[in-house]
Amino acid sequence: MKQRSIVLITVVLFLVPGSVFGVEASGLLVQARQSFSPLPDKPVFAEYNPGTEAKIALGKMLYFDTRLSKSNTISCNSCHNLATAGVDNNPVSTGHMWTSGARNAPTVLNASLHIAQFWDGRAEDVEEQAAMPITNPAEMAATEKLVVERLGSIPMYVSLFRDAFPGEDKPVRLVNVARAIGAFERTLMTPSRFDKFLKGDEGALDENEKTGLATFLSLKCVICHSGVGVGGGAFMKFGLLEKPDFVTDPGLFDVTGNKRDMHVFKVPSLRNVELTYPYFNNGIVWDLSRAVKIMGKAQLGVELTGEQVDSLICFLKSLTGTPLKITIPDLPPSTVSTPKPDIN
Amino acid sequence: MKQRSIVLITVVLFLVPGSVFGVEASGLLVQARQSFSPLPDKPVFAEYNPGTEAKIALGKMLYFDTRLSKSNTISCNSCHNLATAGVDNNPVSTGHMWTSGARNAPTVLNASLHIAQFWDGRAEDVEEQAAMPITNPAEMAATEKLVVERLGSIPMYVSLFRDAFPGEDKPVRLVNVARAIGAFERTLMTPSRFDKFLKGDEGALDENEKTGLATFLSLKCVICHSGVGVGGGAFMKFGLLEKPDFVTDPGLFDVTGNKRDMHVFKVPSLRNVELTYPYFNNGIVWDLSRAVKIMGKAQLGVELTGEQVDSLICFLKSLTGTPLKITIPDLPPSTVSTPKPDIN
Repeated sequence: MKQRSIVLITVVLFLVPGSVFGVEASGLLVQARQSFSPLPDKPVFAEYNPGTEAKIALGKMLYFDTRLSKSNTISCNSCHNLATAGVDNNPVSTGHMWTSGARNAPTVLNASLHIAQFWDGRAEDVEEQAAMPITNPAEMAATEKLVVERLGSIPMYVSLFRDAFPGEDKPVRLVNVARAIGAFERTLMTPSRFDKFLKGDEGALDENEKTGLATFLSLKCVICHSGVGVGGGAFMKFGLLEKPDFVTDPGLFDVTGNKRDMHVFKVPSLRNVELTYPYFNNGIVWDLSRAVKIMGKAQLGVELTGEQVDSLICFLKSLTGTPLKITIPDLPPSTVSTPKPDIN
Repeated sequence: MKQRSIVLITVVLFLVPGSVFGVEASGLLVQARQSFSPLPDKPVFAEYNPGTEAKIALGKMLYFDTRLSKSNTISCNSCHNLATAGVDNNPVSTGHMWTSGARNAPTVLNASLHIAQFWDGRAEDVEEQAAMPITNPAEMAATEKLVVERLGSIPMYVSLFRDAFPGEDKPVRLVNVARAIGAFERTLMTPSRFDKFLKGDEGALDENEKTGLATFLSLKCVICHSGVGVGGGAFMKFGLLEKPDFVTDPGLFDVTGNKRDMHVFKVPSLRNVELTYPYFNNGIVWDLSRAVKIMGKAQLGVELTGEQVDSLICFLKSLTGTPLKITIPDLPPSTVSTPKPDIN
C-alpha cells in the first residue's frame, strides 16, 4: 500500500507540472495542481450502483417527489433546492410539522465526490445519505413501509423501478429509492472557471482571482480545503486554534463517542460557496467575508486583513459553477390505493 | 348588445359546423364545438400586462423563489407544483408554521383562461391572484414591505424588474411581482387530445372517449363544464339539486354576503382532472369515480350507473394535456442586506 502511494506520487509529479499542450504551466498552476483537481468530465458512479439512464431518470423523479414525505409536502428538493445551488439558504431547514433541523443543509451539487456525507460524515456516500432524511421524524418523517406502499401503488413507478433495478424480485425498496436518488445526485456537477484553469486554461482566472488563489495557498487554507471539492475530502476540528463561541455542536463526537472528535466536522466544499450561504454547521453566519475572517482566526490562528479577505473571496467566487439546466420531471399520479398524506 | 349577440351567434353557426379542410365534421364534433373551444395556440395576456419575454422570465424565477415567503421555505410552486400538474395533490395546502389552508389549491395550468381566480372567484385574474397567497398569514405570510426589501436588496432582481417594467420609477413592487408571475402563469397551457379533436382531428379521440364525450353532453354536465377550460367559466351552487353533507363552505357568500351565493363556487376546470386529485373545494374525495358520481347526484339529480361513470372518466382522461417542459430557473443570490428568513 505504501509502495503504491510512492509510485502514484511519482507519476503525479511527472505528469502534472510543466508543459500541457506545449504551453508552460505557471508556477501558480503547478502549485494549484498539487492540491486541487478539476471535476471529472463524467459523473463517477459507485461500483455497486451503476448509473444507468433508467436509474438516473427515476432518481430525478424521486428527488422532486413530495410523496417521499409523510405529509406530501417535502421533497429532497425542498432543502436541497436546485434553483438555489442545491441548498435552501436557511440556517437550518424546516421539516415535518415545522420542526427545525439541527444543522445547515449542505449543497447536493458535487457532493457525491466528498469523502462522506452529512456534516459528521455518518453516511458513506450519497446513496446512504439519501434515505436518511426520508425517514427522519424531524425531516420528511416517512417510514420505509410508507414509502414502499406509496410508490408500490403507482404502476408507472413500479415499472420504472423494474427498469432501473432489473432482475430484482421486489425493486421498490427504500434502499433502491436512495440508490436511484444517489445516482441522479452524482450527475449534479457544476464545473467552474477554476476547473478550466486547472486544466491548463490559465486565462480562465483574472489577475485578482489568481492573487486570491495564491493567498489561499500561502495562508494554508488549502491544508483542509483541497482536492476535487476544494474541501469535502477530510474531517477537521472547528476551532482548531481558537474555538468560536457558536461552536457547541459535538459533531463527529456524537457518532464515535471519541473525545478527540469533539467539534470535528467534514470540511465543507467551497465549490459554489458564494451561493450556499448561510455558513457553518449551524448556518449562523450570512456574510462570506465574516465567515472567511472567522476561519482565519479559528483554524489558522491569524487575524486576516481586509485585503486578504477580499482577495480570498475573489478566488472563492471563481468556484461558482455553471448553473445546471434541470427540467422538472413529470411525476406519475397516485392511485386510489396510494396511502394518503398525513400532516400530523 | 342584444343585436351584437345575435350577429355573433349567426357567425359562429356559420363558421363552426360543417366542413373543415374539406372533411365533414361528425355530429359529435359539431355538437362539441357548440360548447367547447380548444386552447389558444399562444398565451393570452391581459391588455394591461403585456407578456414580454423579460417579464415572463422574471415571473418564472419568482414563481420558484421561496424568498417571497416569510420563512423562505414556500414558493408558488410549493402548492402549485409544476411536477404534479400544477397542484400539490393534498386536500388543502400546508402554509406558514404548518397552517392548513381552508380550500384545495387549484391547478395553475390553463387557469389564466378562467372567468376569475380562487374557488370563490375573489380575484379577477391570475395577476390579482398571485399576490394574495404571498401576503396571506396562513400561506406564505410575507408582507409587501418584506417582499420589496428582499427583492430590492438583490441587484440582479432589480435589474430584471427594470427590464420587465421599463419606464417605471420603482419597478420592484408587489403588484409587479404578481404581474410577472401572472404573465408566466399565462404561458402554462397544456393542450390535450381533446383540443386536437375540437380542431378537426377526429381520430384524436378513440371510440370510448367519443362515447364518453357524448355521455358528457347528453347528461348536461356541459351546462357548467363548458368553454375553453371545460369548466372555469361560470359560478354554480354546489348541491344544486342535492347538497352533499361535506358542503359546508359558504363559498361566494363570504365574498358577497348575498344569500343566493351560499355554497356557490367557480366551476372547476376539468382539464388535467385525472391528475388534480383530491377533488372539490375541500379536497375531500380522492377517487375520480366517486367525484363523478357525487356530481351526478348533487348537480344533475341523477344516480349515474357504473357504465356512465366509466364512460365519463374515459372522456375526462382525454383532457390530460401534454406535460410542460419547464427548466428550473437559476435564482440570483441574496446579499448581506437581504432581510433574513423568519420561521415564526
